[in-house]
Formats: sequence, structure tokens, C-alpha cells
Amino acid sequence: MTEAESLMQLALKAAWEGISQGQSPFGCAIRIGRKVVAVAHNHVLASTDITAHAEIVALREACRNVGNIHLTGALVASTCEPCPMCIAALHWARVETVYYGSTIDDATAIGFNELTLPAKELLRIGKSNVNLVPGVLKQECQQLFQEWRASHAYHPY
Amino acid sequence: MTEAESLMQLALKAAWEGISQGQSPFGCAIRIGRKVVAVAHNHVLASTDITAHAEIVALREACRNVGNIHLTGALVASTCEPCPMCIAALHWARVETVYYGSTIDDATAIGFNELTLPAKELLRIGKSNVNLVPGVLKQECQQLFQEWRASHAYHPY
Repeated sequence: MTEAESLMQLALKAAWEGISQGQSPFGCAIRIGRKVVAVAHNHVLASTDITAHAEIVALREACRNVGNIHLTGALVASTCEPCPMCIAALHWARVETVYYGSTIDDATAIGFNELTLPAKELLRIGKSNVNLVPGVLKQECQQLFQEWRASHAYHPY
Repeated sequence: MTEAESLMQLALKAAWEGISQGQSPFGCAIRIGRKVVAVAHNHVLASTDITAHAEIVALREACRNVGNIHLTGALVASTCEPCPMCIAALHWARVETVYYGSTIDDATAIGFNELTLPAKELLRIGKSNVNLVPGVLKQECQQLFQEWRASHAYHPY
């Protein structure tokens, strides 16, 4: 298993925990050097907070744990391609690399109200230095959506 | 004074309070119907939270106050054109209209590490229904940056 896959496993585990708690099917893990500084799942419904996507919750936790608003050199695994809010937040935090599994198109297909702007495009247009690596444990990440769709036919957030 | 300008005055007041507390020079106010449901300034440094832009802080407060992740019909005044993170968050919250004063270019000019993607472009590419109204109390909003620059020559966040 690669280091990217190993980090993604943590994000997947968090997403499954989220699903079991009735949350949306997204997870995120952040590592700096050898240390995992944050693991989180989507908390939008639990917190009544539209901004509490997995990546935002993880970034907030990472900043708090590191004591710094900049997470230089950080590697991030997100089960789904970050939406424009999240990829921009990852840019602000100056992370190094973002791995992801499923895509914004996959999320749109199960009913999420996505802005149809690929993360890669946003970073390119915005002239960001964040590296983006798609397709990490893609099938396992897509499985989250299949499981979630089976139990949540309506009201996706 | 128009209703947009009246709401912007609240955002400006919050931004000035933020500056007086050593925070970055941005403010945001949110109104639904006749009720102001959130007013906030940037809290990035105070909270050690890279996501705590004025709009994000205000959205979280508004969701909490309204008890709903969707702020249907909300009017939002932001002293500066929202960055991609913030405009995408405003899309997720399903607000109706966003008024702003100064621009992303103005923020870049005083040293903020902005993604060079105008809010209007992000909404257009992403096929969002959020209305965007520029130039509300523009000079007053730009004045925040001038004041802030005079006292913070380095390390803008």
C-alpha cells in the first residue's frame, strides 16, 4: 500500500463512521511529516453548519493541533474530489498535495448540489501551487456513495 | 441609504472592530427578511483557523441562529468580493444575493494570497443561482484596506 493509500484509509474509515451517524459520505485525513494531524468526516447535519465539509473540519482541527494557520508540507487525503469551497480552503492553508478518490461528478450523480467546477480547473485558473492527485482508492471511495445512496433516497446535502 | 448599503454598514462596523483587535480587514453581515441573523469579522488569527474568513464565520453563526443549513432568501453583505472558498460556501448555503464593496484584486494588491478567480466567474462556471452585486459602498470598503496596510506592512493573511 502506498503512503497516499494509507492516508486515504484513514479518510475512508472516518467517512464510514460518519455514515453510521447519519452524516454525509465524505472523509478527510491530513498528515504532516510522519504525524497525522487531523481526521474528520462531514459534520454538516450534526453541527447545523453548511461549511462543515470533511476537509473544512479537518483543516480546522489540523490548524488547532499544529498551532498554525499554515500547514506547509501537509499531505491531504479526501475521499471525494474537493468542492470549490474546500479546494480553496486547502490553498489558503498552503498544503502541499491533495489525494482524492471519487469525483465531483460522482457526488453530483447521487444528488449533491455541487458547483460544476473541477478542483483541477479552480487551481489552474487561480494560479495555485497545490498538487492534486486523483484516483486514490477510487473504488473504495465510490463505495461510500453507493452505500449512502442505498439508505438516503432523498435530501442529500 | 439603500437596504444593501444599510447591511454593508454592519459588515463595515464588524471589519473595523476586527482591525482594532489585530484581525484581517474583512467583515460580513447576513439578513433574512427583516432579521439580521449574523454579523462577523475575519477570525483567522484569533482562532488559529485558516477557514475563519468573515463570510464563513457569519455563515456558521447564521446556520446556528436559524437552525437550518440552508439560508433561503438570505441577503449577504461582504466588505470584499468573496474568495472562491467563501463564494462556494455561500452557494452551498443557498443564499439569494451577495453584495460586496472592494474586490479580490484590491485584496491581492495589499498582499493577500488570493486565488485569482473572480466570484462572478466561479458562479458562472459552476452554474450557481446566487446573485452577485458589486460596488456597494466600495470606497468605504477600500478604506479598510488602506487603514490595515498602514499598520500591517508584513505578513498579511
